[in-house]
Amino acid sequence: VTKEPIPVIVYGLGAIGIGAVKLALQKSYIKIVGAVDVDPSKQGKDLGDVIGGDRLGVTVQPNIQAALAVAPAKVVLHTTTSFMELVEPQLVELINAGLHVVSSTEELSYPHLQSPAIAERLDRLAIDKGVSVLGIGVNPGFLMDLLPLTLTGVCQSVESVEVVRVVDTAKRRVQLQKKTGANLSEAEFRGLMDTGRMGHIGLVESVALIADGLGWPLERIDDEVEPVLAKELTTSEFFQVEAGRVVGLNQVATGWSNGKPRIVLRLHMSLRAENPCDRIRIEGTPPIYLEQPDGVAGDHATVAILINSVHRIVEAKNGLLSPHDLPIPVCRS
Amino acid sequence: VTKEPIPVIVYGLGAIGIGAVKLALQKSYIKIVGAVDVDPSKQGKDLGDVIGGDRLGVTVQPNIQAALAVAPAKVVLHTTTSFMELVEPQLVELINAGLHVVSSTEELSYPHLQSPAIAERLDRLAIDKGVSVLGIGVNPGFLMDLLPLTLTGVCQSVESVEVVRVVDTAKRRVQLQKKTGANLSEAEFRGLMDTGRMGHIGLVESVALIADGLGWPLERIDDEVEPVLAKELTTSEFFQVEAGRVVGLNQVATGWSNGKPRIVLRLHMSLRAENPCDRIRIEGTPPIYLEQPDGVAGDHATVAILINSVHRIVEAKNGLLSPHDLPIPVCRS
Repeated sequence: VTKEPIPVIVYGLGAIGIGAVKLALQKSYIKIVGAVDVDPSKQGKDLGDVIGGDRLGVTVQPNIQAALAVAPAKVVLHTTTSFMELVEPQLVELINAGLHVVSSTEELSYPHLQSPAIAERLDRLAIDKGVSVLGIGVNPGFLMDLLPLTLTGVCQSVESVEVVRVVDTAKRRVQLQKKTGANLSEAEFRGLMDTGRMGHIGLVESVALIADGLGWPLERIDDEVEPVLAKELTTSEFFQVEAGRVVGLNQVATGWSNGKPRIVLRLHMSLRAENPCDRIRIEGTPPIYLEQPDGVAGDHATVAILINSVHRIVEAKNGLLSPHDLPIPVCRS
Repeated sequence: VTKEPIPVIVYGLGAIGIGAVKLALQKSYIKIVGAVDVDPSKQGKDLGDVIGGDRLGVTVQPNIQAALAVAPAKVVLHTTTSFMELVEPQLVELINAGLHVVSSTEELSYPHLQSPAIAERLDRLAIDKGVSVLGIGVNPGFLMDLLPLTLTGVCQSVESVEVVRVVDTAKRRVQLQKKTGANLSEAEFRGLMDTGRMGHIGLVESVALIADGLGWPLERIDDEVEPVLAKELTTSEFFQVEAGRVVGLNQVATGWSNGKPRIVLRLHMSLRAENPCDRIRIEGTPPIYLEQPDGVAGDHATVAILINSVHRIVEAKNGLLSPHDLPIPVCRS
């Protein structure tokens, strides 16, 4: 069966959005028909120029109405910010336009936790308009939540889930090195922590997503962040960090059920972290232990899972969905 | 939201069917309302007596009509034989009765490969009757197909998929030791091979399932089986195998695409196999490498994934489904 490609608009042309466009161009089942960005310096340009490639005949528009006036679409790839409060008006506009949404917004991977009222409004609106909305990514959205949930599929019962992810940020984008505190003093790091601006966004969402998938009511979720300090001079392409200053962070999110820490997610991200890896341990019948010795590189993977969700969202039920509500986003060519 | 438990009939009370009943009794969202078996010595007995537990008030019936006459049901757990030709009339009867089916039949995990005509008939009938039919298990159905497919979700592109599974059959049921040739002579093993009665059922289905998920047309699938011979006296609880006789088998199924072996599944099952494990290697962007150092125990896991599929099948689209057509069968209590 030869199907028409799915017409897609990319909304947000930061690093992830640009990566998504580049990958979408290689997929026969996707056709990029529009692009939207708030940055006036990108508006009016050909999308090919913005991503640094050949002309595509798609002009970057200032808003979704302008994009839809040029070409109708079915799905929006939404890559703007991490936070529900900021994306709600954007999502409302996209849903009202009758578009399915695949979004990289971290908090949207499980918005019922921190923004239950917004989540309910979006869910009702999406059902009303006959569209599906999904927040997904590699973390949150896969490595520390959807993958362990998938593994429970072969368990008769589950007692606890523990995931450890160790990332060497020196091998990643400068933004991640900055976000994890590279070259801050410990005092600066703790100052940012106190204002809630330090720590990976989405780890508590991953805990809540696992609990939701397993049907576990949680009493509470703890989220602890600590700086990792350089033991010696530590360098990356972008930073030279003296001993005693910050090279990254250790974060642990814990979901408590029946008085026990039953979901424990440990994320270590630092410059030159030793033995980068992903490990999943499920205590249950049978027990499951799995490791990915080199870990999964985040940036390529995040772009991939967004694109791989496009063929799933058009066949999904309507409403605000969680990653485990859909069939797995397999890689199609 | 308190939902009514899903009423389920168990069809086939062999080892897997009995395991499924025991596990279903622990699940709040399932209610076993009926049981069917062809064995006259089980018919008329209380299901609790058959599984070796407390009375359940469910009498084992000789056929589905008799079971439905006692209590209506929504889902059938079907655990009879491995082969499409034998199960087609059973499935037709269940579909005609308006029941969703979750089946352990190995060939049903991807019936389009070896029985395309039967698969098409069942698909059309299931759509016509408004029900969903799924073949699933741990292998085929998860470890060597659905799990690697899931991992491609974070890949931008996939070049090849290789899965290695090593099973120490001495730690498993006597049936598996027999099925893999324990204590046969090499000549006896090769004789059974020549008549197609030696080798794991479902490995070529796993290759076809991965190819289907990725959207790869395959030129052909090779399936090679070789005996593994004891190097020294090798014993299990059930066998004493002299050096030179068979302790198990090595099987490799290979899917060829564009002239290349792009899907390679290697299954080693033998008494006292060293380093039991599951390993998945995906060449692509990014590459993925994952291992489960002790492997996943098959018997508990097969029963688990059948039960964990019950809450998925009632919400799935109609027709004959493959494991990657549904959301992941997470373990619910």
